[in-house]
Amino acid sequence: MSATIHRLDPTRPDPSLDPMVKLVAGDMNAVNAVILGRMQSDIPLIPELAGHLIAGGGKRMRPMLTLASARLIGYTGSRHHRLAAAVEFIHTATLLHDDVVDGSDMRRGKRAANLIWGNPASVLVGDFLFSRSFELMVEDGSLKVLKILSSTSAIIAEGEVNQLTAARQVDIAEERYLDIIVAKTAALFAAACRIAAVVAERSEAEEAALDAYGRNLGIAFQLVDDAIDYVSDAGTMGKDIGDDFREGKMTLPVILAYARGGLDDRKFWKDAVEGRRDTDADLAHAIDLIRSTRAVDDTLARARHYGQRAIDAIGGFANSAAKDAMIEAVEFAVARAY
Amino acid sequence: MSATIHRLDPTRPDPSLDPMVKLVAGDMNAVNAVILGRMQSDIPLIPELAGHLIAGGGKRMRPMLTLASARLIGYTGSRHHRLAAAVEFIHTATLLHDDVVDGSDMRRGKRAANLIWGNPASVLVGDFLFSRSFELMVEDGSLKVLKILSSTSAIIAEGEVNQLTAARQVDIAEERYLDIIVAKTAALFAAACRIAAVVAERSEAEEAALDAYGRNLGIAFQLVDDAIDYVSDAGTMGKDIGDDFREGKMTLPVILAYARGGLDDRKFWKDAVEGRRDTDADLAHAIDLIRSTRAVDDTLARARHYGQRAIDAIGGFANSAAKDAMIEAVEFAVARAY
Repeated sequence: MSATIHRLDPTRPDPSLDPMVKLVAGDMNAVNAVILGRMQSDIPLIPELAGHLIAGGGKRMRPMLTLASARLIGYTGSRHHRLAAAVEFIHTATLLHDDVVDGSDMRRGKRAANLIWGNPASVLVGDFLFSRSFELMVEDGSLKVLKILSSTSAIIAEGEVNQLTAARQVDIAEERYLDIIVAKTAALFAAACRIAAVVAERSEAEEAALDAYGRNLGIAFQLVDDAIDYVSDAGTMGKDIGDDFREGKMTLPVILAYARGGLDDRKFWKDAVEGRRDTDADLAHAIDLIRSTRAVDDTLARARHYGQRAIDAIGGFANSAAKDAMIEAVEFAVARAY
Repeated sequence: MSATIHRLDPTRPDPSLDPMVKLVAGDMNAVNAVILGRMQSDIPLIPELAGHLIAGGGKRMRPMLTLASARLIGYTGSRHHRLAAAVEFIHTATLLHDDVVDGSDMRRGKRAANLIWGNPASVLVGDFLFSRSFELMVEDGSLKVLKILSSTSAIIAEGEVNQLTAARQVDIAEERYLDIIVAKTAALFAAACRIAAVVAERSEAEEAALDAYGRNLGIAFQLVDDAIDYVSDAGTMGKDIGDDFREGKMTLPVILAYARGGLDDRKFWKDAVEGRRDTDADLAHAIDLIRSTRAVDDTLARARHYGQRAIDAIGGFANSAAKDAMIEAVEFAVARAY
């Protein structure tokens, strides 16, 4: 691996996922064919509900990372198509269960599946997709991939339970918040990238480099997502502004605003997080406090820190279109809230 | 394999699971150690909630079947301990999600976990246990076992969705009901038995024989469970009598009573299944109709049919204490409602 220095450029105009999308477009067609084929079932409700979410868009970020990572290391086989689909099924199952857990109204700009078909159907179709993802891995036959993705799945579930038990408690430390987002988001980003090196039979060092890229990108991605919930002109996320606020979710903007607030502000945050302040006026006041304490700015600064680490993690790979696309994907991830 | 004829004896006094429990007691200690060790997590809610259900008893029927099957074929290793724990984790995850889906009040004679900790926690801890079960299988390292249990998990989820879409519809045929109970119950019984032959590296024929034993026992078991819900002096199931009735669940007693009923009776069943009759008086009337149409008797006759097939499936194995215990387990399963 030869060293090249890339600095994350937060001023690059309109960073975009397009280079990565174009890079993997052919592979993604193959992945989509697996996804569509394997969400089928003799029980009509299963493809109907799964299709609502899967066909409903989403960036296919995680399978795209598997495909881009494979391209970065020059893998020329096709085993990663099935495994990228398995990763997307794990993610989709998690979204279906999350929406039940959070009582969400919207997902990817559409009504959440649980509002249309009910919580029971969302729970069970999630279980189905989760099982299917393991079937896909078993068909591939790599015990190493199975180990990575089964342990990642357990970590995701632990992260979700950790988040659940942290909800509506104002006294959550930044460290615990980081543990939660690493588990519930970054771990699957890391695994999605790492398995490309596994099927390509590359060194532990290359596996670890791709894992670190995905993990740091995932952290940055979640930090920015959590910032966007308090930035009123975002509009592109397909979820309602203020959702996290009304759910009393302890995300970094709130953690910083609480830590930096005076006694009155702390009282407000405690009331809000515990569910006693959830009007539009309360949300507006929360956004004011977050702005005056620079809590969003510093959440985004944290995101850039992890973004830079993601870029450095793949610094040792030779320069290529894949590497450029992976760097711009990081810049896209951290720039979304500007 | 040498042939011996065993007839299921529905008149055997007090058939019991005790011989099977005693047969595998030593092995079950090892399985319980795996279960207790692997339900741990740094997130305290996980072992707390999982422990409520797991320590809360249950017969450990499925892991017991793995252990008894291994004994039947003379397997002397210990790989089946971890895999029996994996099977129990799949079952436990399914129970946690079932209770959310059904809105159950009771499970194994205790308050259902979702009533104590809420639906979100039950969904997520179920996901955790499901992931852990795959981690256990990966540690064992048999792709064949992974294939059997991942496809079984998908079949269980499909069966649950099938049952969900059949709920509150009086016009469900016996064939569809059978499809549902094979998928949601019998498939895991079959897999639990089959994997013993896989780790022992026995012939496809022995695998298939154990699969058929488990599958038919599972069907018989579920048929009797469904009958018990309409037998008012049962009391040993840890669930409330009439639960299925109030949920509008189309089980075989209802299917037979509806099919055999006059116009008035059919109207009653349609109203009940669609949720317009759910008082204690309605339940008493339903039990009367089920009695007068012999719907429970014939549900139990169907159970004996599958019980006999389970016994015949292992007819070719040499006589042994294990075989006697497996035959008596069938007799226990079909006798529970007498």
